[in-house]
Amino acid sequence: MQFNSTLDGIKTYEAGKPIELVVREYGIEPKDIVKLASNENPYGCSLHVKEAVSAVVSKMPLYPDDSMYRLKDALSTRFGVKDKNIIIGAGSDQVIEFAVHAKANKQRPVLMNSVTFAMYEIYAKHVGSPIVRTNSQEHDLEQFYSLYQEHNPSIIFICTPNNPTGDAIDEDKLISFLQKIDSETLVVVDGAYMEYTRYKDKRKAVDVKAMIERFDNVLYLGTFSKAYGLGGMRVGYGVADESIISSLYKLRPPFNITTLSLEAATVALGDEAFVNDSIVKNFEQMRRYEEFAKESDLEFINSYTNFVTLLFKATQNSSDIAQKLLEQGMIVRDLAGYGLNAIRVTVGKDDENSRFFELCKKLI
Amino acid sequence: MQFNSTLDGIKTYEAGKPIELVVREYGIEPKDIVKLASNENPYGCSLHVKEAVSAVVSKMPLYPDDSMYRLKDALSTRFGVKDKNIIIGAGSDQVIEFAVHAKANKQRPVLMNSVTFAMYEIYAKHVGSPIVRTNSQEHDLEQFYSLYQEHNPSIIFICTPNNPTGDAIDEDKLISFLQKIDSETLVVVDGAYMEYTRYKDKRKAVDVKAMIERFDNVLYLGTFSKAYGLGGMRVGYGVADESIISSLYKLRPPFNITTLSLEAATVALGDEAFVNDSIVKNFEQMRRYEEFAKESDLEFINSYTNFVTLLFKATQNSSDIAQKLLEQGMIVRDLAGYGLNAIRVTVGKDDENSRFFELCKKLI
Repeated sequence: MQFNSTLDGIKTYEAGKPIELVVREYGIEPKDIVKLASNENPYGCSLHVKEAVSAVVSKMPLYPDDSMYRLKDALSTRFGVKDKNIIIGAGSDQVIEFAVHAKANKQRPVLMNSVTFAMYEIYAKHVGSPIVRTNSQEHDLEQFYSLYQEHNPSIIFICTPNNPTGDAIDEDKLISFLQKIDSETLVVVDGAYMEYTRYKDKRKAVDVKAMIERFDNVLYLGTFSKAYGLGGMRVGYGVADESIISSLYKLRPPFNITTLSLEAATVALGDEAFVNDSIVKNFEQMRRYEEFAKESDLEFINSYTNFVTLLFKATQNSSDIAQKLLEQGMIVRDLAGYGLNAIRVTVGKDDENSRFFELCKKLI
Repeated sequence: MQFNSTLDGIKTYEAGKPIELVVREYGIEPKDIVKLASNENPYGCSLHVKEAVSAVVSKMPLYPDDSMYRLKDALSTRFGVKDKNIIIGAGSDQVIEFAVHAKANKQRPVLMNSVTFAMYEIYAKHVGSPIVRTNSQEHDLEQFYSLYQEHNPSIIFICTPNNPTGDAIDEDKLISFLQKIDSETLVVVDGAYMEYTRYKDKRKAVDVKAMIERFDNVLYLGTFSKAYGLGGMRVGYGVADESIISSLYKLRPPFNITTLSLEAATVALGDEAFVNDSIVKNFEQMRRYEEFAKESDLEFINSYTNFVTLLFKATQNSSDIAQKLLEQGMIVRDLAGYGLNAIRVTVGKDDENSRFFELCKKLI
């Protein structure tokens, strides 16, 4: 059967290998596997969230409150915006999908960084949109601007801190850039790891309320999958001017968040102590990666997230190293597919990181 | 900001009002509210599912196994097909979305029944596809065929048993119809309530394996939201020839099912006793609706599902009746939006149904 020709160009997203798969493929015992590949929170999630979800397991048969009243209320309080400024997605991924389907098309390209989150391109291909990329590993906003002028993109994707590299943009530079973009171009500011950035360097943290009030063409994205430790529950959100949110809402499928996920995310927002504690530990452990890199004569990208990108020399091969780590039960993300001879490693718990250093040392 | 013009025609799906909303809007105590609006399983879900999900609550921080190995394995065993014949969606809704985005377009219409599941039209509008409908309340396959010949649709939606009316098609008539459809037209056979139909009348039950082996243009849909009692967990599936599944897979976002939902659906498939027990009770209680309708001189549609559609006389108004029921804490679905002077009532538990009869009697 013939399908729409837009499908021809779509490559499927390659997810971090789940532990179950490594058990099956390599016959390694689950207890011997360390997964530092998907930037999950190694400290899990808030105990309050576990208790709250356990208490509502019997609600699984009931469709969720599709107005998402409680979660929107908690998010609007958090950001100081109205509930009409918020849309909830099954991960911020789904909000990216809404934005691309609503705004992108075959006529105008979407603009994104050379190396950035893979789903921007995948969703753009859903609608057959051309794609324009910068040629710089870090977000070079001057280059973004000249490509914007040249190509008149429908959407500009700014991922800060960037995934899979970990670097982040100074807020004042971002604001200066946004001032130069016309109001008919949607700018998606993806802050999936922003909680980490805000702790490490306030100058790189985005003031969401101020930004969306000032720029009615900016869609800010956040997620519960990273600092909040709910990667398995699929909840993210978009914050923007009401005119953007009401348009994206037209593409939102009903009941796009599970009943238990709604409970989890709502309760998670109430336990900032857990999130802060995770972030403090994250940057304590990240120092060990930086020391490891220096000792091993490896370059690394200064990271504002819960992962670190290690760059290899020409004599080393990231795919080989990632594969050999995998065969010993250490799952990390090879970045060869992003054009980098590098691996991205989630900053895990103390013992997980020690294990990584021990195994990696033998391979480089 | 201007968005793609396809958005202009999209109306948002109106979900059944959740209990929380009725509490907020009408100040009714949760204990006094009965929701018979969303065809949830009134007997909940399997105890084994509750236990299994409770046991994996601590996995919320971990992304799900995106290969969905265990669930696909369980489903392929159930249907006697290969895992390559299966795609999992966040509800069968999402599989409808994949199918429409993959196959429908502005050039060829999609064909569906006069009264049928609202999401077919909503997703078709996402891609700007024209829509052709029959004019018959029940699926009239002869009329479907003549509209097919006239309009050359990209997709034909067959909903059996049909939602929101509850009637079902004889399998032999469906097979005869499928034989006449060319292999470039995708036929979606939506069996969301098929477990109920299979119990009530085997002649109206679809043999999924035989159907997809014989017709490489048929996509069968099933869900865990109804008989399996997992409406809040958002898991459905499509079964079809591998060529269809591999194309739909290109549009599947990674991690489209939560970690807990995967566990729930997998375990649910292993407890057929629960499902059978729910279905037996459902049809026992449905007899009470049929008696109520006869006593009240109301017409009803013979239902192969867990809901019943009551048709009112010209002197009665379904919207008024639904609203008055709502104000007394009884949530049902008004079908005025579907062009019917009727309400759809989920067949609930004994006491819930008694309450409905008591309240409805006073209003008609």
